[in-house]
Amino acid sequence: MRNLRLILSYDGSEFVGWQVQPGLPTIQGTLSTVIGRLTGENVLPQGSGRTDAGVHALGQVTTFATASPIPIENWRKVLNDGLPASIRVLEVSEAPADFHARKSAKAKTYHYRIYRGDVCPPFLSRYVWHYPFPLNESAMSQAASVVVGEHDFTSFAAVDPDRVQRIAAEETISDRGHGESSGKADGANNVRTVFSSEWTRKDGEFIYTVRGNGFLHHMVRNLVGTFLLVGKGSLDSEGLRKILAARNRSAAGATAPASGLYLVRVEY
Amino acid sequence: MRNLRLILSYDGSEFVGWQVQPGLPTIQGTLSTVIGRLTGENVLPQGSGRTDAGVHALGQVTTFATASPIPIENWRKVLNDGLPASIRVLEVSEAPADFHARKSAKAKTYHYRIYRGDVCPPFLSRYVWHYPFPLNESAMSQAASVVVGEHDFTSFAAVDPDRVQRIAAEETISDRGHGESSGKADGANNVRTVFSSEWTRKDGEFIYTVRGNGFLHHMVRNLVGTFLLVGKGSLDSEGLRKILAARNRSAAGATAPASGLYLVRVEY
Repeated sequence: MRNLRLILSYDGSEFVGWQVQPGLPTIQGTLSTVIGRLTGENVLPQGSGRTDAGVHALGQVTTFATASPIPIENWRKVLNDGLPASIRVLEVSEAPADFHARKSAKAKTYHYRIYRGDVCPPFLSRYVWHYPFPLNESAMSQAASVVVGEHDFTSFAAVDPDRVQRIAAEETISDRGHGESSGKADGANNVRTVFSSEWTRKDGEFIYTVRGNGFLHHMVRNLVGTFLLVGKGSLDSEGLRKILAARNRSAAGATAPASGLYLVRVEY
Repeated sequence: MRNLRLILSYDGSEFVGWQVQPGLPTIQGTLSTVIGRLTGENVLPQGSGRTDAGVHALGQVTTFATASPIPIENWRKVLNDGLPASIRVLEVSEAPADFHARKSAKAKTYHYRIYRGDVCPPFLSRYVWHYPFPLNESAMSQAASVVVGEHDFTSFAAVDPDRVQRIAAEETISDRGHGESSGKADGANNVRTVFSSEWTRKDGEFIYTVRGNGFLHHMVRNLVGTFLLVGKGSLDSEGLRKILAARNRSAAGATAPASGLYLVRVEY
């Protein structure tokens, strides 16, 4: 058997998320169908982590096992010919048998794009969060560094116990629980290390970039929602430190919309 | 009565075009509905010209008459609040009573975007034509200048007599027939002046920009399809001159897909 590793980009707007769900459009399910047509094999590609409905990817990584003799240089084209234009395979390579897209991941990078102009261009409406109201962007930039380092991010994790029980029953969660959807049960390890965290300005957008060794479910969107409180002046960096220390989801800001979030890169 | 002038941007992907059609999603119809809700008036905004299904606009101009007392500075917000995110009002101003979005137009600019990379990013698939095959781009750039000046563009006009009869019955066509849909009947004046015509490279795209005093239906897309023959080496600039002189649609190349075309600007 070969272990094939794909790098994928997708527009998450018309999918209910990465994870396969019967009768619903998902990235994983769409990919599984196209691979099945090419190989006759029934495989479920494993991603580096799940992405939620409406969340995009510039560089999701996924692997699947196959006995197909299709040469490595042909895979990208045959997969892209079968996939919808909203999912593109950027690279295909042979991976060692023990390579696992989620468990082997050492770091992930996410972008969150906020469009700041009064009128959001129609071509961007599915790809950003349109927030035209006043924000103290320099206070947000300063606050971004507060989350750098090793912390318990429980305050920024989604509260969805049903989902966690379902996930726990389905798969083995690795020690560090890489992937957006892991590690939210009571007593789970919600400690993650954020390597870098910053806000930058580009073409009318205010963009958050965060790189870390793993992310809890909704963690990036909850961080963005909390930085927004800083931008609105209702929270300062000291307040943000207290929220982090509280290890209590109800202390932090609201979850920012899915449309602005991109999984940019996974490092191994 | 006031004569209000709007500058609009829209993503044409999910519309059957500018012109109102009962029971189908159109830009003109959507705008008419929103204006009706705000004013109680039954108006059909007049555009600078029609755009076809899937064609986009960065700066379409449209006017409508209203007796509404809504202050000029509030119009943009109330219209955008009522419109879908795929249509955005960029500017609203009061226009003289004799201002007509189509008849008063002096020049229009279009862009046509061709994505040249092997894999089209999923975020661009509705906004470009993906053409990854070899093209002699410098030959296309040179050929672009052939169409500059005053010419009879019959070779690049859509052949759709039914549509033209319908249009002729509906509205008065101005002398120069400004607007994509006008002037295609036998004996109609298909002479237009192209002020500039050029191809440029930007971010993996090869982009055609053309500015002229008016455009026949499908003219830009037919020009692009014909420049493509030059890029493929099956036509040279001399051949392009002969096609222009032939005044016969069957002489030119195929119509390029709608997704790459943008109405950029209308000048008055």
